[in-house]
Amino acid sequence: MKVGFVGLGNMGLPMAKSLLGAGHALTVWNRSPARGEPLVKQGARMAASPADAARGADVVFSMLADDVAAEAVSVGAQGIVEGLGKGAVHVSSSTISVALSQRLTDAHASAGQGYVAAPVFGRPEAAESKQLWVVAAGAQVDVERVKPLLESLGRGFTVLGEHASMANVVKLSGNFLIASMMEALAEAFAFTRKSGVEPRQFLEVFQSVFASSPIFANYARAIAEERYAPAGFALRLGLKDVGLVLEAARAAEVPMPLASLVKDQYLGGVAQGHGDLDWSALGALVAERAGLGKPPR
Amino acid sequence: MKVGFVGLGNMGLPMAKSLLGAGHALTVWNRSPARGEPLVKQGARMAASPADAARGADVVFSMLADDVAAEAVSVGAQGIVEGLGKGAVHVSSSTISVALSQRLTDAHASAGQGYVAAPVFGRPEAAESKQLWVVAAGAQVDVERVKPLLESLGRGFTVLGEHASMANVVKLSGNFLIASMMEALAEAFAFTRKSGVEPRQFLEVFQSVFASSPIFANYARAIAEERYAPAGFALRLGLKDVGLVLEAARAAEVPMPLASLVKDQYLGGVAQGHGDLDWSALGALVAERAGLGKPPR
Amino acid sequence: MKVGFVGLGNMGLPMAKSLLGAGHALTVWNRSPARGEPLVKQGARMAASPADAARGADVVFSMLADDVAAEAVSVGAQGIVEGLGKGAVHVSSSTISVALSQRLTDAHASAGQGYVAAPVFGRPEAAESKQLWVVAAGAQVDVERVKPLLESLGRGFTVLGEHASMANVVKLSGNFLIASMMEALAEAFAFTRKSGVEPRQFLEVFQSVFASSPIFANYARAIAEERYAPAGFALRLGLKDVGLVLEAARAAEVPMPLASLVKDQYLGGVAQGHGDLDWSALGALVAERAGLGKPPR
Amino acid sequence: MKVGFVGLGNMGLPMAKSLLGAGHALTVWNRSPARGEPLVKQGARMAASPADAARGADVVFSMLADDVAAEAVSVGAQGIVEGLGKGAVHVSSSTISVALSQRLTDAHASAGQGYVAAPVFGRPEAAESKQLWVVAAGAQVDVERVKPLLESLGRGFTVLGEHASMANVVKLSGNFLIASMMEALAEAFAFTRKSGVEPRQFLEVFQSVFASSPIFANYARAIAEERYAPAGFALRLGLKDVGLVLEAARAAEVPMPLASLVKDQYLGGVAQGHGDLDWSALGALVAERAGLGKPPR
Repeated sequence: MKVGFVGLGNMGLPMAKSLLGAGHALTVWNRSPARGEPLVKQGARMAASPADAARGADVVFSMLADDVAAEAVSVGAQGIVEGLGKGAVHVSSSTISVALSQRLTDAHASAGQGYVAAPVFGRPEAAESKQLWVVAAGAQVDVERVKPLLESLGRGFTVLGEHASMANVVKLSGNFLIASMMEALAEAFAFTRKSGVEPRQFLEVFQSVFASSPIFANYARAIAEERYAPAGFALRLGLKDVGLVLEAARAAEVPMPLASLVKDQYLGGVAQGHGDLDWSALGALVAERAGLGKPPR
Repeated sequence: MKVGFVGLGNMGLPMAKSLLGAGHALTVWNRSPARGEPLVKQGARMAASPADAARGADVVFSMLADDVAAEAVSVGAQGIVEGLGKGAVHVSSSTISVALSQRLTDAHASAGQGYVAAPVFGRPEAAESKQLWVVAAGAQVDVERVKPLLESLGRGFTVLGEHASMANVVKLSGNFLIASMMEALAEAFAFTRKSGVEPRQFLEVFQSVFASSPIFANYARAIAEERYAPAGFALRLGLKDVGLVLEAARAAEVPMPLASLVKDQYLGGVAQGHGDLDWSALGALVAERAGLGKPPR
Repeated sequence: MKVGFVGLGNMGLPMAKSLLGAGHALTVWNRSPARGEPLVKQGARMAASPADAARGADVVFSMLADDVAAEAVSVGAQGIVEGLGKGAVHVSSSTISVALSQRLTDAHASAGQGYVAAPVFGRPEAAESKQLWVVAAGAQVDVERVKPLLESLGRGFTVLGEHASMANVVKLSGNFLIASMMEALAEAFAFTRKSGVEPRQFLEVFQSVFASSPIFANYARAIAEERYAPAGFALRLGLKDVGLVLEAARAAEVPMPLASLVKDQYLGGVAQGHGDLDWSALGALVAERAGLGKPPR
Repeated sequence: MKVGFVGLGNMGLPMAKSLLGAGHALTVWNRSPARGEPLVKQGARMAASPADAARGADVVFSMLADDVAAEAVSVGAQGIVEGLGKGAVHVSSSTISVALSQRLTDAHASAGQGYVAAPVFGRPEAAESKQLWVVAAGAQVDVERVKPLLESLGRGFTVLGEHASMANVVKLSGNFLIASMMEALAEAFAFTRKSGVEPRQFLEVFQSVFASSPIFANYARAIAEERYAPAGFALRLGLKDVGLVLEAARAAEVPMPLASLVKDQYLGGVAQGHGDLDWSALGALVAERAGLGKPPR
């Protein structure tokens, strides 16, 4: 297939590489073009704009950092909507708000184009090794069309229905679950540590009893060892995502007091200058409040 | 070894059976003696009181439902302290308060006896199949002595230090982690469901992305399928355990806002008459508040 | 002075009447013009649009229900900005978001016009009897100019500085304080009532000890007597205002866990169909969770 | 009447003085007898023990710092129960737990004595100037008997019924309301201050709009001026009282999420070494989390 890819950040670059490796004709665009050079060497074409990357493509992917960037490359000047042909499909993998996902669905529909939301679970290493899990939603015909591409990105995917924004609801809920587990771990480590239990001992119990799940195990280790830098996923991004959860939950009329609690923790972290630590630094914030000393700088 | 066992409830009975199966000479006591008959058939002796079960034993286990029962069989009239010989060890596996564990440590020390706290992670099925994980703490000499017995109870154990109550801190923290995960799942399911995502689809994503941990997977399924009865672990017991966490955390001066949040959820559940549902019924309480209908009766 | 007034709702109408009564030449506009007839009888002119009400005026007031309406009458087609002359001043008394207040400041500045935010504390009865308290902010020259008008609206005012949006910050904070007090009262009444204390007795204590403040006394009485309809200020408006607080607090990087708690209470109230009750119906929501029965319909 | 008074702390001393001034024959006891000397000079008798102060009295008051002290002087060796005659009444004005109040009711009933709980609202200055407000509960005959004494303590009282502990429920609820208002003020001041509003300006608005209630006005001023030492009422006592609220609320099955929130704030304050600041130092804790700098030492 002819595939476009817009946004070659830490996640986008390895995802584009997977598509290229699966034998598709790839045209890429990134704000700073140097990021695309390794792909060009492997046969990709460099586009002059998102619209250019979309022009003539069967499917164009986008993977951007936030709502502002995702909206700009989609419906801004020289954006994807301008370039994409009728009947072609935009697959949006960014972690964006539910409201924006709905606006993009409408914009593409007005232009006779398809829109599939397909955010992914997994870190850059998982993207590199094709271990992502994709959650996809959109009109059935469009989802069917892009399935082979989703398959080449990761180890599997779940299709969530015909409303694209449901995939964003699920992606945000997943990040909320991780953040919640982190707050729980942060409180549990502060409590056990202040009661005299060695963090590595509590970690051993956690691993033995709960943590066949590697996600939770990794964060438990970060908290046990008080290693919050460099950030795998920055605290300020955690704030962004939990903020998006609360925004969408308010629109859906769902009180989420735990999400509110975690949001206030992250907001306090940012306000006190820890926004660039890893989002597991909840461990440090909770410990500080328990009189166990200050977060690392 | 000569071993006593006090308390043959859903957890105690299979644990006692494991000890008997490992070849130890077992004397048992239970408030209603009928519970002990299967063990007597396999060679155990029935004692007339906790003191009687402890008399002459190298080690006596106890496994009771709460602080009141655990305190009564230990330091009450005809309790374990009365019967146990000098140098023999009481292994307390009940999920009890940190403060009571400290009082029992002192009581046994005054009597020249050893005290090891060794609560377990796992449901009755896990006790039956020797899949429990034990967390033990106490004076090193006592812990060394009982290690072979702990080994015959489950698939492994963690030794946490010389202060017995640390094992209770860790057990309570484990239950707090489960309750927190449940609140997080409850909010995530209410949010996704009200946004139009089928619960079984969100369950599929959860299982694919997070839930190699069977504990979390089981609770996620209960919430997805709205199956809260019969209770595996009753909501009112969840309230008890989270209450014990908060009590100990206050003594240790550790603010735990998530534990407070979960406690208030459980307390509301009990106040509204749902105390006998499974503790995963947080799923129903959160859904009701989101306008998704009432909990089952 | 020549004064325009846009928005003749429950608050706007008595405020406009006060200005008319103080001897100013008044031109009014309301979406449904019938609301303005009593004023026309007393000598006001009815305008054809917000722009028309602003044209030729020294000062134009606006008092609308929410951000959407306030933005439309200000910068929409035939809005205030279109009609207002250079150097004339828009006094915005609506309870709107901090962000919108900043956008309106910019829009008027670009048009060479002044903008003063001047939200008010007090119910319609207070507006009728000139008992409002006004909080005003904006460029000093503009504030000076409108001071005589603010004086005729209520019993006094506080000037908060040169950034108009600060007045909105303070107005939202005031509503947050009321909502918080209501949650506190709701919990205190549920606790005392379930402990066997008659609500009217606790009300007597509250009045004797705390409530020289009539605002709090009134809400305490509503909760004590379980009278939540008709709404003086609807629960869904409480949700709106606390939502605006949280939005602005996030932008300012201020964690407000109590505001989050109250927001989730209001959101749950709306989700369960109680959005049209008075915002003091927190009393009913808290009581229900304590097992004290359902809110009235 | 013949009156005993046990506990001559900051509150007890002026209360005893009021009773003496009203013409009653007073016998006093205090752990360190020096505190009683000014009363002895005015004609009071110094007792050798709480039992001694109660012996022969019609009514004996007690005013102690906490549950431990109140229980010791009442039912401990040489306590009030030992000395008080049949039919005489113990009036307990201490701020104690609901559970202890119930135990004391029972202990006095068993001894054929009356027990009235009569905690007071007001600071030492209010006790000095007879401006306290008393909340009293107990058997009607006992309450009737002590009414003239309660009248000489303050400006009025509310009788709450026949169960003594209800007066404790109401006293604790009152302290909870103050603590809640303080958290609300703390968040409002942090939000307005970080948004650029001068604290003294927000204070002016608060006073104009809300604060005919001098209690709230005083705490708002403390927060506005960041004056948290010396403590009028120490943060650790605030933690104690909110803890007692939560304990009693749990027994009554009433979820109080705002009380939980405030408790965690106070617990964090104590854990970080601020337990001796005034309980209005919530203002500093909230401000610190908003990145506005550290609490004073």
